[in-house]
Amino acid sequence: AEGPRHQGMAKNTNMRWRLPLVCLLWEAAMIVLFGVFVRFGAEADAHWEEEKREMNLTSDIENDFYFRYPSFQDVHVMIFVGFGFLMTFLKRYGFGAVGFNFLLAAFGIQWALLMQGWFHSFKDGKIFIGVENLINADFCVGSVCIAFGAILGKTSPIQLLVMTLFQVTLFSVNEYILLNLLHVKDAGGSMTIHTFGAYFGLTVTRVLYRPNLEQSKDKQGSVYHSDLFAMIGTLYLWMYWPSFNSAISDHGDAQHRSAINTYCSLAACVLTTMAFSSMLQKKGKLDMVHIQNATLAGGVAVGTSAEMMLPPYGSLIVGSISGIVSTVGYVYFTPFLESRLHIQDTCGIHNLHAMPGLIGGIVGAITAAAATEDVYGKEGFIKAFDFTGEYKMRTPSIQGGFQAAGIVVSLLMALVGGAIVGGILKLPIWGDAAAENCFEDDVYWEVPEDEESDVYHMHNPDKPASP
Amino acid sequence: AEGPRHQGMAKNTNMRWRLPLVCLLWEAAMIVLFGVFVRFGAEADAHWEEEKREMNLTSDIENDFYFRYPSFQDVHVMIFVGFGFLMTFLKRYGFGAVGFNFLLAAFGIQWALLMQGWFHSFKDGKIFIGVENLINADFCVGSVCIAFGAILGKTSPIQLLVMTLFQVTLFSVNEYILLNLLHVKDAGGSMTIHTFGAYFGLTVTRVLYRPNLEQSKDKQGSVYHSDLFAMIGTLYLWMYWPSFNSAISDHGDAQHRSAINTYCSLAACVLTTMAFSSMLQKKGKLDMVHIQNATLAGGVAVGTSAEMMLPPYGSLIVGSISGIVSTVGYVYFTPFLESRLHIQDTCGIHNLHAMPGLIGGIVGAITAAAATEDVYGKEGFIKAFDFTGEYKMRTPSIQGGFQAAGIVVSLLMALVGGAIVGGILKLPIWGDAAAENCFEDDVYWEVPEDEESDVYHMHNPDKPASP
Amino acid sequence: AEGPRHQGMAKNTNMRWRLPLVCLLWEAAMIVLFGVFVRFGAEADAHWEEEKREMNLTSDIENDFYFRYPSFQDVHVMIFVGFGFLMTFLKRYGFGAVGFNFLLAAFGIQWALLMQGWFHSFKDGKIFIGVENLINADFCVGSVCIAFGAILGKTSPIQLLVMTLFQVTLFSVNEYILLNLLHVKDAGGSMTIHTFGAYFGLTVTRVLYRPNLEQSKDKQGSVYHSDLFAMIGTLYLWMYWPSFNSAISDHGDAQHRSAINTYCSLAACVLTTMAFSSMLQKKGKLDMVHIQNATLAGGVAVGTSAEMMLPPYGSLIVGSISGIVSTVGYVYFTPFLESRLHIQDTCGIHNLHAMPGLIGGIVGAITAAAATEDVYGKEGFIKAFDFTGEYKMRTPSIQGGFQAAGIVVSLLMALVGGAIVGGILKLPIWGDAAAENCFEDDVYWEVPEDEESDVYHMHNPDKPASP
Repeated sequence: AEGPRHQGMAKNTNMRWRLPLVCLLWEAAMIVLFGVFVRFGAEADAHWEEEKREMNLTSDIENDFYFRYPSFQDVHVMIFVGFGFLMTFLKRYGFGAVGFNFLLAAFGIQWALLMQGWFHSFKDGKIFIGVENLINADFCVGSVCIAFGAILGKTSPIQLLVMTLFQVTLFSVNEYILLNLLHVKDAGGSMTIHTFGAYFGLTVTRVLYRPNLEQSKDKQGSVYHSDLFAMIGTLYLWMYWPSFNSAISDHGDAQHRSAINTYCSLAACVLTTMAFSSMLQKKGKLDMVHIQNATLAGGVAVGTSAEMMLPPYGSLIVGSISGIVSTVGYVYFTPFLESRLHIQDTCGIHNLHAMPGLIGGIVGAITAAAATEDVYGKEGFIKAFDFTGEYKMRTPSIQGGFQAAGIVVSLLMALVGGAIVGGILKLPIWGDAAAENCFEDDVYWEVPEDEESDVYHMHNPDKPASP
Repeated sequence: AEGPRHQGMAKNTNMRWRLPLVCLLWEAAMIVLFGVFVRFGAEADAHWEEEKREMNLTSDIENDFYFRYPSFQDVHVMIFVGFGFLMTFLKRYGFGAVGFNFLLAAFGIQWALLMQGWFHSFKDGKIFIGVENLINADFCVGSVCIAFGAILGKTSPIQLLVMTLFQVTLFSVNEYILLNLLHVKDAGGSMTIHTFGAYFGLTVTRVLYRPNLEQSKDKQGSVYHSDLFAMIGTLYLWMYWPSFNSAISDHGDAQHRSAINTYCSLAACVLTTMAFSSMLQKKGKLDMVHIQNATLAGGVAVGTSAEMMLPPYGSLIVGSISGIVSTVGYVYFTPFLESRLHIQDTCGIHNLHAMPGLIGGIVGAITAAAATEDVYGKEGFIKAFDFTGEYKMRTPSIQGGFQAAGIVVSLLMALVGGAIVGGILKLPIWGDAAAENCFEDDVYWEVPEDEESDVYHMHNPDKPASP
Repeated sequence: AEGPRHQGMAKNTNMRWRLPLVCLLWEAAMIVLFGVFVRFGAEADAHWEEEKREMNLTSDIENDFYFRYPSFQDVHVMIFVGFGFLMTFLKRYGFGAVGFNFLLAAFGIQWALLMQGWFHSFKDGKIFIGVENLINADFCVGSVCIAFGAILGKTSPIQLLVMTLFQVTLFSVNEYILLNLLHVKDAGGSMTIHTFGAYFGLTVTRVLYRPNLEQSKDKQGSVYHSDLFAMIGTLYLWMYWPSFNSAISDHGDAQHRSAINTYCSLAACVLTTMAFSSMLQKKGKLDMVHIQNATLAGGVAVGTSAEMMLPPYGSLIVGSISGIVSTVGYVYFTPFLESRLHIQDTCGIHNLHAMPGLIGGIVGAITAAAATEDVYGKEGFIKAFDFTGEYKMRTPSIQGGFQAAGIVVSLLMALVGGAIVGGILKLPIWGDAAAENCFEDDVYWEVPEDEESDVYHMHNPDKPASP
């Protein structure tokens, strides 16, 4: 059982000094930057007792912690277990899927706290953080996890860390442009997280195109148990998506509504995914790849509009359509992208995040443009779109236009940013593996020598030791 | 490795047109019905600002979302990961267990929102929904997941969808009779969910009796890893059951008390299950089937009474007894039911849901009958049993009688409904598999060609390709 | 495949009467003690309506349930899925890892409700419980799960129950000394849970030293899928640790701050763990053992200080250091402890809990000693350290001294208690397995006869039936 373990020698994939150096230096940088900039926000600071009095709050329950912490934990599970396990479907890349996702997300949330902090929570030279910052950091990292899906199995952990550094930076700039300059609503991140993350990742994987990848074709599939592990990821993403889309919505009705719409959209999405998965296969059998991924498209596609007064039947329509688009994408677009456009998209993020993200942006623009004071109520209308201060005079149709502009900006940022970052990752210094060693944990991980086969033979000492 | 894949040809199990047709038509129906009927409830509507003022609420935290959303998410996990993974114990039916559970639950919650909405949230021709409706829809679907346990591995996905359609309908009628006509308390659903769901499923599997099922006997067992996957389901059901039983209880003490009682009951149940699992086996070894299932009986059995003033030691007693009954059921009743009554109960729902559900109904009736103003306090007494309006004159003993009547009604609805629905499912048009292909994912799923064995051999190219 | 199943005959490991006897008698004792002592606290009692009026609470949301229940559920998941699955890394001890953890924790939480209740919630001869008691019971059991990690695979279920009985008792005494007599702060349990639990477990495993354990060396490793199961445990512990450390902190800012600090510490810990895991291996490959365990050290190490005004960069430093210490421990200390000190530490709890626990105690003492009214605010200062009543005159530096004393007391209690309990567990009546049968589920569990191998052969009917 030594074969592939030595074939990687053609390229130097030894991480011994490079990975520790990057991890330790960057963590040291985080410590310094946190030391200079990061402080507790008013609701997490021991001065909260005085704050409460000043703000006339009569109870600790008014602390934002109680409005958002349960949703935060759900989002946290989506990032680490959801994305991590969703990518374990490959037969021999489970360690890399869960482990590298863990690594990049753990670094990314620290850097995101800083980047997003400078843009959104900066006052008197300090960044003041609270539970909403934690959620936003997780969201930002979510876009990196999405991009990771496209290059899964083909990059070294250092490349992933470098990509995370740049992508978090660009994400924060893009998010600032959308939310602050364009005054766009995007609580569930159809544009900022999914569209941006997916097109960024697709561009990166295009730049990193590997012409000989069929050399590791035998490892690009799943095995029975790896498909079940992946379903853990799928279900946690699916179940907690209502928390994802509502986590940073306004307190009260907006969080409530957002959760309901996401619940509805995802339920509908499962049915159309199953329908098309069966329909597009000659024998009518369901394909685990579709069930694992396309069932989630409904959550992506209501990301922008879920907190708006999109009625529940609207969510069902959006979810239904996105399930169809996503499943069709897996069957027809992914092979096309690979063969014609040289976009090797390991997890099919084009189907799960890119197209549904665009749908989400468009649905958000339409829903915003269609808003009326009648439907929202006078106060609700102003609150929902934050039409106050300098945006006091915005009308729904103008808002719709800005929402649409947000899609275009996100796309452009992703394509340009992805091209640049892809170029950086192409440098021959990051220790990526040769084509024949892609999708193989053995390159970067100590893999247990003995497979289950060993266990069977243990019981049979008179049999030879290897199958 | 082609054998069983072709044996299914005797029966036409090709889903290619049937499954998509059902999924798409039904989803279209959902969209139309949601469009006509479903609107946001006051707490999820953008008019909430005005609502707050009218109701003199000073804070957004008073929105029901914050009282119930964390419990909702726990219940959601129980339905999709809990039930889904609990059923992955079969060695070759993991895709079907998780995937079909996903499918039926995703359809079921939509239909349940409508059915329960018509009965409970209907006003001026519209159904107004909020987080409590989502929880109730999940609850309703829980009863279908239970019934699915009895027929696991023996039905086509279309049969499951048809069963879901009817069972959700009957569930809602039964629930309406119990909660509204009999004015019964059943927050954790011992009667409405477990007794009804289990006897419904047992009746269906009786009608669908397969005399030649021993032909797939080799696939009715577990393998080492499938038992671990199943434990994921078990533990999530076990851990979140306090949320299940408290999710729709009254705000405040009732939710609090319900969680405590369920926690206690489940803890006790684990000990008696382990005791009897060891005691009933000659070598004293523990059986994973019992640990996976009977440990949960304690949650079922306090479903009705957990929110009442059942004292914690009462919960321990109920949990202890139900663990014993359930384990004994697996050892003695299940084989009896199969051989004598021709009830083939794949997951043993008779032991996990039917008997404990009955216990739960009875314990609830007794606890209600034993209620006194002294124990509950004057206000607490009225609030706990909702003895207001036309029920102002009800006494605890009368309430106990109605609770008992609720058990009988649930049983009857389950038996009659199950017989009818079983008859419908027996029609030879739904594409179920032949007996020798039961418990085999290969019939309805694209199963990865190569097992782990392949991976070992990959490393050993000079060895023959099969073990 | 009969080999090892009969080798255990040398020792009598048959649990048939012993395990049921212990389980049933102890559960009966729990019922009696709960009947005599345990009642609902004011917030879980039906008199809550009157209580609310007396306490001038205007809303049910003020019930402690809504402040703590989401955190409770997260802690609950950590105990049962987190610890349970973390220990499934062994190739043939998955049932024992998850199942025995389930058993001991289910018993432990009942006994802990009583023990901690007598110390902390006792009034007029009764123990009044609420959600905070459930959390504390889970915490207490957490220390037993930690100790279980040291002796994993080498003890019978009865030994585990006996250990649980004594350890919960000693934990409660130690906790009482620290929290009530020394007036120490330790919300996340660096001292009470981790230091105590780990040194207790290490002492027990030292007393139970097995000189011939290399006879089961082949079963002490992992296989590919068991490492992925273990990652489920790791990630749930990692993700929910912010809830663990904040679950019983004061309402408001303290809970909020504690979650943020833990989030930061854990993120940093992942990077330094990955760095040292790669650095300490010749080929620079990452080791799953480190990723599964050392990444969690950051949560342990801020357990005491997270709720204090430890600034976020302080958390990053603590997390970074503990990741390094823990990883180095796995590489150098664990082998040393086994060969020189005869401490056989199956899961390496010395690295994950003992050393980080000590770090946590020390960091807590320093953070307390460094507290100033300026940083906390006048009211915040008093509230954070509860400097009221008889502790009104305590200064931060004195508090720091008492914190340090808490570490010493916990250590002493663990060493003395562990030695005594270890001695009890050494009695030859508990049915532990012979050295060659350690780390093997087959001793205490019905293990499915056929491995996955069987499935392959099913497809190959012309091949012989066993591998």
